[in-house]
Amino acid sequence: MSTRITGIAELVTNDPAHAHHADPGDRLGVVHDAVLVVEDGHVAFAGPAADAPSASSDDLAVDVAGRSVIPGFVDSHNHLVFAGDRTEEFAARMSGQSYSAGGIRTTMNATRAATDAQLEANLVHLVDQARRQGTTTLEIKTGYGLTVSDELRGLEIIARHTSEATLLAAHIFPPEYEDDPDGYVDLIVEEIIPRADAAKWIDVFCDRGAFTLKQTERILTAGKTAGLLPRVHANQLDHGDGLQFAARTGCASADHATHATDEDLAALADAGTVATLLPGAEFSTRAVYPDARRFVAAGVHLALATDCNPGSSFTNSMPFCLAVAVRDMHFTPAQALHAATAGGARALRRTDVGHLAPGARADFAILDAPSYVQLMYRPGVPLVQRVFVAGEEAH
Amino acid sequence: MSTRITGIAELVTNDPAHAHHADPGDRLGVVHDAVLVVEDGHVAFAGPAADAPSASSDDLAVDVAGRSVIPGFVDSHNHLVFAGDRTEEFAARMSGQSYSAGGIRTTMNATRAATDAQLEANLVHLVDQARRQGTTTLEIKTGYGLTVSDELRGLEIIARHTSEATLLAAHIFPPEYEDDPDGYVDLIVEEIIPRADAAKWIDVFCDRGAFTLKQTERILTAGKTAGLLPRVHANQLDHGDGLQFAARTGCASADHATHATDEDLAALADAGTVATLLPGAEFSTRAVYPDARRFVAAGVHLALATDCNPGSSFTNSMPFCLAVAVRDMHFTPAQALHAATAGGARALRRTDVGHLAPGARADFAILDAPSYVQLMYRPGVPLVQRVFVAGEEAH
Ligand SMILES: [Zn+2]
Ligand SMILES: [Zn+2]
Repeated sequence: MSTRITGIAELVTNDPAHAHHADPGDRLGVVHDAVLVVEDGHVAFAGPAADAPSASSDDLAVDVAGRSVIPGFVDSHNHLVFAGDRTEEFAARMSGQSYSAGGIRTTMNATRAATDAQLEANLVHLVDQARRQGTTTLEIKTGYGLTVSDELRGLEIIARHTSEATLLAAHIFPPEYEDDPDGYVDLIVEEIIPRADAAKWIDVFCDRGAFTLKQTERILTAGKTAGLLPRVHANQLDHGDGLQFAARTGCASADHATHATDEDLAALADAGTVATLLPGAEFSTRAVYPDARRFVAAGVHLALATDCNPGSSFTNSMPFCLAVAVRDMHFTPAQALHAATAGGARALRRTDVGHLAPGARADFAILDAPSYVQLMYRPGVPLVQRVFVAGEEAH
Repeated sequence: MSTRITGIAELVTNDPAHAHHADPGDRLGVVHDAVLVVEDGHVAFAGPAADAPSASSDDLAVDVAGRSVIPGFVDSHNHLVFAGDRTEEFAARMSGQSYSAGGIRTTMNATRAATDAQLEANLVHLVDQARRQGTTTLEIKTGYGLTVSDELRGLEIIARHTSEATLLAAHIFPPEYEDDPDGYVDLIVEEIIPRADAAKWIDVFCDRGAFTLKQTERILTAGKTAGLLPRVHANQLDHGDGLQFAARTGCASADHATHATDEDLAALADAGTVATLLPGAEFSTRAVYPDARRFVAAGVHLALATDCNPGSSFTNSMPFCLAVAVRDMHFTPAQALHAATAGGARALRRTDVGHLAPGARADFAILDAPSYVQLMYRPGVPLVQRVFVAGEEAH
């Protein structure tokens, strides 16, 4: 079974073979008047129409009539195992009113009280919604259960829907351990991690008021021993040691990085650790945005993700995050798209997604626009028209 | 023919009859567990399910299963008669690069060169796209033709798609009149306005570097004499006399109002002139946002609109504008929704739209969310699921 997409005004490949030699900063590998051929779920050809192999008789042909095609978004940071509703809390916060309810504990209590089916239905709704907006790979974290059984069932639910499952038992300290934080770290290390077979990743919220550097190190070390790959939430709320720690300990990505010194950036660049910026979080909490130009100048690999969660960033719209990243974080449009596709893949140590070179998984989106730049030029407009995952159209 | 919408978790009516008496600031008239009944294109009942009239046999019944329903958005500021593509200009501006092409003159040249059919197809595409995002009433302006025939054909195209057609021949000075600005004002007053039968509104871009107060007054006076209703673009780029002029001369709305003194706000409030804020413009040009709290404190009626145009705000997403209005202009979620519905209707002097009281035109949107607050809580997510105009579902 092969599919042939023709009439592509602009095809973003993220393939160095198509990069413009005149522009050393170009990594999108844009091809105009392009054709994309998919065979058995993988890219067989992505390039100029003039160079395309001739159509075979079993091709399904789609003429996109001057639209653009981009790699599917790789959203490398999501918290989707939860229950409960915090809409009123958001409205109160944005209206400058005080709100007495319990913030993240509201979500924790509702998550613990929910059935597996309820949790999975909410996750599936959000995953489907993200896919319709062009996201073809999602990382998903636990972190609202905060007991052995709730964290493990969260992982199992996640693993049914993505290979990028992350154990984030170290999200906050649950109320049972309020006076014994190291006791909760013991629980994670001794009871949860050894049974977290469904996870690929181990993550810790290392920040002011959250897990200390020492606690983070214990948890990540135990995770690595159990075969999990490390990543961290770091420096969202304040400066701290999290970014340099991530670089030093081989984390694939350090996420948020809202507060970063020049030394932090140099360490990330030297280590090849991705900095995953999360514009939805700064948008939804009215925080100050990090400046992507500093990361680029320092040579740090960048990813963009939604941080979809009910507390601080309840968007799962990668196009929205791209528009804000350009407007408020000073990504160029090209840098933003690269970070949201190839950057996310690097943050997940994936080489099969985030680009459309021959052999890649055929994950792509057709935009109702002649150029990917319209994702930022036309903020909020649902331009993602059709989405394909492994060559199959998603609905 | 009647339609009955049931299972509404939250119905926004903008009807004072449903306002919460405990909250004098409440104007949304939210009803929980509500039913909406439409007869012959108008609202027959909008209120608690317990009070709803019994279903008649010819009802089309739609159970929205816990979703929310809001009045359709009234987008009172759009520039949709144009041709040409300025995507590259946008990318260069947002990347901090210089760009040699002609800005608004690029659009003017392409618009003059386009056929009527091309202009209309582009407008229809944008109108349909807006409607899928919940916009059920659009104002549309001319302003890229800038000749007698191009402005008049623009009006005719607009009038085929909305009753809210605005003559904005006074958008910029065309190159032919660069050295004779008053000659262009003569042309507008003597040649265009007398033949602008298709228009409801006369508009002028009154700002630094654009039309002076004296030129604005000549054009609006001539428009009023010809039976057109006045509105202005004012104080987008700088402080000036535009807002007070708008209040003094009976404009329905003064749009942008990015730069407003306390005296400007007092004048708008006293006159009942709507201030229409356009967050897409500040977003897309990285300008400083006006603070809605000042307008509210001064008692100014507020509207929110997209300002959809290819130069400075190429979004036609009212949900996006609402999210930015809350985040960056400090609207409360309730104020933002009111401004985008009832506020827009007031800015267009319409009483039949912008609310869902009995007798109103049945223009409404079903959101895939339990509350309208999720339009801001979930920025960028396409939550508008189904849209009805005069009781008929739009596709
Ligand atoms: Zn997170
Ligand atoms: Zn305008």
